[in-house]
Amino acid sequence: MIIDHDSIGQMADRYRANFINSVLGAKPALLVGSQNTDGKTNLAIMSSAFHLGANPSLLGLIIRPSESPRHTLDNILATGYYTFNHVNPQHIDAAHQTSARYTEQQCEFEQVCLSQEYINNFPAPFVKQSTIGIGLKLVEHHLLNVNKTHLLIGEVLLVDLPSNLLGQDGYVDVAANKSIAVTGLDNYTRLQSIKRLSYAKVNQWPTEIS
Amino acid sequence: MIIDHDSIGQMADRYRANFINSVLGAKPALLVGSQNTDGKTNLAIMSSAFHLGANPSLLGLIIRPSESPRHTLDNILATGYYTFNHVNPQHIDAAHQTSARYTEQQCEFEQVCLSQEYINNFPAPFVKQSTIGIGLKLVEHHLLNVNKTHLLIGEVLLVDLPSNLLGQDGYVDVAANKSIAVTGLDNYTRLQSIKRLSYAKVNQWPTEIS
Repeated sequence: MIIDHDSIGQMADRYRANFINSVLGAKPALLVGSQNTDGKTNLAIMSSAFHLGANPSLLGLIIRPSESPRHTLDNILATGYYTFNHVNPQHIDAAHQTSARYTEQQCEFEQVCLSQEYINNFPAPFVKQSTIGIGLKLVEHHLLNVNKTHLLIGEVLLVDLPSNLLGQDGYVDVAANKSIAVTGLDNYTRLQSIKRLSYAKVNQWPTEIS
Repeated sequence: MIIDHDSIGQMADRYRANFINSVLGAKPALLVGSQNTDGKTNLAIMSSAFHLGANPSLLGLIIRPSESPRHTLDNILATGYYTFNHVNPQHIDAAHQTSARYTEQQCEFEQVCLSQEYINNFPAPFVKQSTIGIGLKLVEHHLLNVNKTHLLIGEVLLVDLPSNLLGQDGYVDVAANKSIAVTGLDNYTRLQSIKRLSYAKVNQWPTEIS
């Protein structure tokens, strides 16, 4: 079936949110850890992070100021540091619950029973239960005119991961880690590797690599 | 194990590319269709698309000018229109092969044996073999200072999908569609739904929804 621009415009807000959030496909489920200048910590599930470049090592993140991760945005702009923490299967419910609209006085870590930890004096909290954690420093910030969302670009300063996940070529086996993906707003999925393919060259069909 | 900023800086380029591309987690595998002002078409696999907002309906895309999707960037900036096409399991090899450095004279559609089709006179080609296609119009463009990549923001003008995938609440079941995700640069994965969770509220643990 074909859904055109008019039909999309006429959708109810919640229906359209489900539709557009899901139609893109897979998104990473990440718990974003941050703290304010007094050291009060915050944790929020987000699925709008993306790869921006490896040299320097940069990851992007979109935050909508009107939504509950507002504290996260304020914290990152105030301190310049934040963490991405992978969601593991046993913590899906807790991760999802961080999206409830807790007040500034309530700490999501406590409310959802996840533990914060500090690694190598990095100035933002990691999630102890997450097997993969990434520490980032804000290096560029754009307000996007079209819908007033914020694009935060962070440089990767630190990665904490189980050594057995790291392959000889630098590949981190996030499927073996059982890292969770999100589709739509609220559907948590697992990743199942099919195959890796060789670097594509003209006149040569790709082959499977291990 | 903890990998710090110095260690990341000392990685060989290809190793670092594998590392940073994979450590984030799941990314959507999308074939980006475009054409130049003469109607010559182009197709490129990308995994750097992300959700930006539902009202208006916006998706973001990162393109690095130094890499092979350069033709895609030129086309989108010239015409303002492009498509996202989901990769299905039987077309993983063909999708991957679009990343080979074909010349401007070579059409990726032909080279990898995928068929282009036009839907509702939309001015960019869709992939006939893809069960989900999204037509976008460029509405905002940023050159990111930190690494000179391009952020393209597109408004969703058209979606073509099997009607049985669309739920009553607008959710598109991309896992049931067998839409492919990418981890790292070259690992193709399938999505397996675990559960959907109810809208998170303070003082109420989320429950599973169907």
